[in-house]
Amino acid sequence: MSKDEIKIFCPATIANVSCGFDVLGLALDGVGDEMVVRKTDQRGVSIKKITGQDLPLDPQKNVAGAAVLALLDAYDGDAGFEIEIDKRIKPGSGIGSSAASAAGAVWAVNQLLGNPFTKLQLVAFAMQGEKVASGVAHADNVAPAIYGGFTLVRSYHPLDVVALPSPKELYAIVIHPQIEIKTADSRKVIKANISLEKGIKQWGNLAGLVAGLFTEDYDLIGRSLEDHIIEPIRSILIPGFDDIKAASMAAGALGCGISGSGPSIFALSKRSDKAQNVAAAMKDTYQKLNVDFDVHVSKINIEGIKVIKK
Amino acid sequence: MSKDEIKIFCPATIANVSCGFDVLGLALDGVGDEMVVRKTDQRGVSIKKITGQDLPLDPQKNVAGAAVLALLDAYDGDAGFEIEIDKRIKPGSGIGSSAASAAGAVWAVNQLLGNPFTKLQLVAFAMQGEKVASGVAHADNVAPAIYGGFTLVRSYHPLDVVALPSPKELYAIVIHPQIEIKTADSRKVIKANISLEKGIKQWGNLAGLVAGLFTEDYDLIGRSLEDHIIEPIRSILIPGFDDIKAASMAAGALGCGISGSGPSIFALSKRSDKAQNVAAAMKDTYQKLNVDFDVHVSKINIEGIKVIKK
Repeated sequence: MSKDEIKIFCPATIANVSCGFDVLGLALDGVGDEMVVRKTDQRGVSIKKITGQDLPLDPQKNVAGAAVLALLDAYDGDAGFEIEIDKRIKPGSGIGSSAASAAGAVWAVNQLLGNPFTKLQLVAFAMQGEKVASGVAHADNVAPAIYGGFTLVRSYHPLDVVALPSPKELYAIVIHPQIEIKTADSRKVIKANISLEKGIKQWGNLAGLVAGLFTEDYDLIGRSLEDHIIEPIRSILIPGFDDIKAASMAAGALGCGISGSGPSIFALSKRSDKAQNVAAAMKDTYQKLNVDFDVHVSKINIEGIKVIKK
Repeated sequence: MSKDEIKIFCPATIANVSCGFDVLGLALDGVGDEMVVRKTDQRGVSIKKITGQDLPLDPQKNVAGAAVLALLDAYDGDAGFEIEIDKRIKPGSGIGSSAASAAGAVWAVNQLLGNPFTKLQLVAFAMQGEKVASGVAHADNVAPAIYGGFTLVRSYHPLDVVALPSPKELYAIVIHPQIEIKTADSRKVIKANISLEKGIKQWGNLAGLVAGLFTEDYDLIGRSLEDHIIEPIRSILIPGFDDIKAASMAAGALGCGISGSGPSIFALSKRSDKAQNVAAAMKDTYQKLNVDFDVHVSKINIEGIKVIKK
């Protein structure tokens, strides 16, 4: 490849992570899209090819296209790009499929332009892609894709992203039942108000989780992985959620919850062997329930988006 | 003094700290009560003397007494203690007056018994003292008094306290207008429900503050010191709150908010000189408004309760 072309890996991501609704996310390794981005003589952006999924090629309707258009809008100069996406993360799976495309596209374009934009700016551009997918410009998937590891979106107005440390032995397990829940639909079931009592539990847990990430205190991480607000409502939409959660906790998971807006279910665990046990317990549960699924076991990806070829 | 007697300093504390309602607190230096606790032949606890304030001597109605009774209830053996309190923190000031007595009493008794109880257990006993004062067994003042520094009460059921780091150059400023707001009254104005939107802001900020404490990122600490939930309601009860806040921010404070349930107002700042500027700006504001006040400038007290004489 030339300096005008880049091939990248765009990671899947887990948003919310039980206690961090709308603000917390983490990047996965080994599961993600691949994308080639190429400079062209023609201004703007075109989506040349999408393999793996049937998604719109019109840049304004495509999350990667919309994100790059937001970037080019802020770019002081003329530039044009074409994008090929090998879409390996299923849309609507709850592990940041649209975020991977949006984040990957702006990250690659920024590389090809010589990095004029900061990571925080790239998150803001990628959020415009997310808006095309779900109607909401959320950042909790695009931020970990771009920063890597765990990220906190402290504030949306103004946008403030904080990179958090990832304990070395922490693994994520994700199981994806083969049903689709649209993020937009999944947001509809959420109530506009919560009790202050539950709010206090939630911010206590999120603060505990952040402290646990800094101190590599796996027990504290586990104790903090509770969601009293969203999980009780959204989990009803996910087949066998309670069984999967019970099985993964029994198999030694630190915690288990809904990945993003679902239907994927994630667990965190300490060490690879425990993670494999948790994955086996999850698989076993869905096999007994006759639910088709994909399952992924991954270290926390502290790099985020990676160059495959340049 | 003998090994059967101990004299201690019981620090004032700031609870809530803007974004950590009911879960976060920090301990102050230089402002606090003094207490002498002495082993006696008689089982149980007696409050021998209270100077500085007019408070009940009946152990069941006194926060220190009630806390020690809770400890003795859990103690496997016979023991008796008498307590003298030099009460320098005004009750109802919002800087943990009752917590200082409750935490100090159980901490001293534990010392005299040879430390049979953990800090976490001491917090639980001290909470029983808090219950006598305000009707609610809250832990966000007693935890920092006992652990020192910043503490997070991640959960109340089960009780889970996380000690957080205190950046070296962080100072707290507290101004206490000479009016009394009872914690119980101050809790009444709080609504039982909050919007999810405000909840998201709150847990984003608390997570940001915790990250800022770990990374000694003073700017992040400052950006995170926001309270969209409690402050807008409670600040109405505090004379000149908006003016004090504006003046302290203009003088370089990282953030400013209500200390506990008020009426004291706290600010945090980086470095001693900034803290003095903030204190001067606060003083000046209350002098212009003809409000009587006390003001304290303090490093974060990372030890918590301290032995004065043993």
